[in-house]
This record gives sequence, C-alpha cells and structure tokens, in this order.
Amino acid sequence: MKIINNVKKMQACADQARFEYKKIAFVPTMGYLHEGHLSLIRIARELCDLLVVSIFVNPSQFAPHEDFDAYPRNFQRDFEMTEKEGVDIVFSPEIDEIYPSKFQTYVSLEKIPIHLCGISRPIFFRGVATVVTKLFNIVKPHTAVFGKKDYQQLLVIRRMVSDLHMDIDIIGGETIREHDGLAMSSRNTYLTKTQRESALSLNKAMKSAQTAVESGVIDASRIISETKAFISSHPGTQIDYVAICDPETLEDIQVINRPALMALAVKVGSTRLIDNMILNMK
Amino acid sequence: MKIINNVKKMQACADQARFEYKKIAFVPTMGYLHEGHLSLIRIARELCDLLVVSIFVNPSQFAPHEDFDAYPRNFQRDFEMTEKEGVDIVFSPEIDEIYPSKFQTYVSLEKIPIHLCGISRPIFFRGVATVVTKLFNIVKPHTAVFGKKDYQQLLVIRRMVSDLHMDIDIIGGETIREHDGLAMSSRNTYLTKTQRESALSLNKAMKSAQTAVESGVIDASRIISETKAFISSHPGTQIDYVAICDPETLEDIQVINRPALMALAVKVGSTRLIDNMILNMK
Repeated sequence: MKIINNVKKMQACADQARFEYKKIAFVPTMGYLHEGHLSLIRIARELCDLLVVSIFVNPSQFAPHEDFDAYPRNFQRDFEMTEKEGVDIVFSPEIDEIYPSKFQTYVSLEKIPIHLCGISRPIFFRGVATVVTKLFNIVKPHTAVFGKKDYQQLLVIRRMVSDLHMDIDIIGGETIREHDGLAMSSRNTYLTKTQRESALSLNKAMKSAQTAVESGVIDASRIISETKAFISSHPGTQIDYVAICDPETLEDIQVINRPALMALAVKVGSTRLIDNMILNMK
Repeated sequence: MKIINNVKKMQACADQARFEYKKIAFVPTMGYLHEGHLSLIRIARELCDLLVVSIFVNPSQFAPHEDFDAYPRNFQRDFEMTEKEGVDIVFSPEIDEIYPSKFQTYVSLEKIPIHLCGISRPIFFRGVATVVTKLFNIVKPHTAVFGKKDYQQLLVIRRMVSDLHMDIDIIGGETIREHDGLAMSSRNTYLTKTQRESALSLNKAMKSAQTAVESGVIDASRIISETKAFISSHPGTQIDYVAICDPETLEDIQVINRPALMALAVKVGSTRLIDNMILNMK
C-alpha cells in the first residue's frame, strides 16, 4: 500500500492507472476509520483495479465553533486498517496542500443544503462539495463510494456529480450499526457510557416510527412529535431536528403515503449525532 | 470534423483519445467566431492531437436584462470556420443538455469577481466558472486556451483550476484587434458605423495611458480621469468602469510603480465593450 500526500503525485498515479486501463475506485474519509468506512472500502474493492482511500479532515466543512481541532485522528491505525483491506493507495495530504493560500473557489448547491443539517450547519455542504470536487480532480476515480448514514451528503454529491457532468459513478453504502443499533460514527468516541445509552434513542425512535407507519399512521407531524418526546426523555439529549421528508428533495412531507426519509440530528452531551431511515408503508 | 451535441458521446470520445495517448486541447467559445477565436484555436492546434472547440451560449452568465436572446449566433458559419482550422470536434450542445431540470450546483469565487466586470455583472463569473467546470468535465482536456481580452475571466479560470486541482494547463491568448485597434468581439456586430467610431476611443485611451506612464506619470487617478474624459467626449459612450489595478488581485493601484492592469468597460449605444492593457513603466 502506497501512502501519498502530494497532489501532483496522486494525479500522476491516477493517470498511469488510467493509461493501463485500470478502473479506479475511491472512498473519501476523514479518517479514524470504523466498520462503516470498512464496509464502503469493501464495496469499492470489488469494483476496481486501483482502490484509493483518502484521509483528510476537511477544515472548510467545520464552522469555527465546531469540532475541527477535536475531531479524532489516528493515522497509524487508519493505515493499518486500510492495508488489511487491500487498499492500494491512501491519499493523506496536509491542509495547505489542499487549501493553498489565496484559495477562494467553492462549489455550492442551492436547494438540497437548505434542509436538515444545512440549517444548523450553513457552510457544511459547501465545504463537502468543494473538497469532494478537489479530491475527485486529484484521484480521478471512475467510481466513488459514500455512506448512506450521511444521507444528505450523499444526495449533495449525487446532485453535484450530475449537475457538473463529473464522469463518476456514485455508490451509496448501507449504514453499519453497532450490535445495539447505534450507527457507526467516528464521533461515537466522544460519548461517555451514559451518553452512549441515550444515543440509542435515535435508532429506537426510528424503529418505532417504522412500526407506526406499518400499522397505518400516515400523519408525519404525529410521528415527529412522538419521536421528539421519546428522544427528549433520555438524559443529555438535545434535538437539532427530526424530519420526515421527500427522499430526493428533502422537502417536508405531511402525509406518509409513499416512501419517506426520516432524518434525525441530536446532540448527546456536546456530541452531535445524525441518523436516518426510509419509512415504508406495509 | 465531428459535431457532437451529446455529453456522454463527448466524454466517450475524450476517453478514447486519452486511451490512445492523445493530448486534448480545448477552446470554449460562445460561437459567432472571429479572428480572436481563430487565434486561440491556432494556438490550441499546435498543442494537441485532438482539438475540441465548444460553441455554447451559456445562459447562466447572462442576467435577465442582458443580451442572451440577442447574442449573435451563426452555427453554419462557425462550423465552416472551425473545419477550415483543422478542429477535430465541435461540441455544440443544447441548453437542456448542459442545464437539465433540477440543476442547482454552482462554482463561484470569493474575491476576483468582486472587481471590474463583477460589479455591474454580479452573476457573470459564477456562470462562467460553472459552465467551464462542466465543459472541462465533458471534454476532459489536457490544456485549454482563453483570450486575454477577457482578462478577468482568464484570471477566474486560472484561479479556479488551481483551487480545485483541475489537472489542466490554461493558456492565455493575446487580444486580436481590427486594423484600427478595436478589440475583436462577437458583440462588435451590434455597433452602428458611428458607434464603431466611438468604440475606438477605448484602445486610443489605453495607448495614451501607456504613453503617459512611459513619460513618468505614476498617479493612477490622474490617468483614470483623463481616460474617462477622453472616452466620454465620444458620442454615445457611457463608462461602466475605468480601473488601474493589480494584475493578479485586481485591487486598485494608486501609484503605478510596477506593471499595472488598465481595464475598461464602456457602453457604446447599448453595446457593452471591454478592453484591457498592461501598463508598463519605461
């Protein structure tokens, strides 16, 4: 496994692979890898000849008050895990390699980011779209894999790729959960034991919502109220949003008469967790 | 010469060329070609194995009150001219091929566009950066050629390519002028005979400015005043801006003690003309 931290070198490797008719698959990550990332890496491994994983904690998607500095990092462990998965190249650049001085160009979307996480994190998706564009131009993949846990992010990437005619297949990988149902996230490492208990309320609430929908409840606002009440009954939780919305546009749905996205963002202590599920009628 | 109007077909041609180790050069245009475009095409021809010229009047860079509908078009003549220059592919898509419904992704720069043309045309450079990103992803060139007549646009493209790590060489082609000094522009076709006379004041004014700088005048505001007075003395002219600025940042310069960009935008009748020149001390 090669570790590359230079943009030009990574581009040269990608060019070489393409000359050799190799298919390049790419999994962008912010490192501190867990089973969720590994599941994406395994999907990508099957699709390509050259598998590139990036590890880069992207400053432009964090607001000043957010956890950029505290975000967990463990490059050595990440390298060991990627090596074990048969990754060919880890692209792990320094910040100023990706954001040189005088940097001023951003990629942004007008509609998808005005919903859900974009409300409390107004620069987040601009940061994501920008860094993913950069990484795509550096790694030159044929296909890239993103997790469905970050549903809105996946939607942003799909829309951006389509809108800007990036010639890249985007694959969504299923959310991987701990045995007790907590969605895998690098930020789970922030949770104390009690907070971790409270964090389970997200998945439990979504399952209850699914059961309610299956039993014939179609009123989204009723399900949202019940979800909020349930999560709030757990110590240390503070709800950012609970939404039931169109899976493509993310616009709120009042009546659940077709598959609907249920999406949650909840602070547990100071850790912000997100999760989502498609609610299906029976 | 092939004429392609489909994105996927163009991408397939680009992939094929790259597989064959061919170098792709690209000249994006809005059509209604003149000697200025042809000079860029000739530069590109020397640099590549596959020469692609796009002809696409880009709606996203025109404000509603601007001349998108009236912008001159003559595809047949353009095809004849490109064929004669040895162009391999003309990419000439319909609008909805480039801007499908639900389109919402834009590329924008934070600093370069707040100067010069960006002041009276606030969405212009966002439209340019967005369409050029799209075209780069479709044509997949190794190198692309833009005219220096659109100096600020060239600066935007260079910055964007560098900021987003697009692996493309950007070449600036010199401004081509009519025998009487008027910079070539598709919009020159709008000018009446009298207006065309007035339009010559732009180049004349820049030449006077250059002479003044060579003779030791270093006060930018004095040169700007004289330029404005000179141009305004010509019938039908209305100045948008006359600026003397840093050639990289486009920030105003007060004292001309190093090479400075002189940039002009003037309406002659209802036709907006731009021109520029680097002022050099003796």
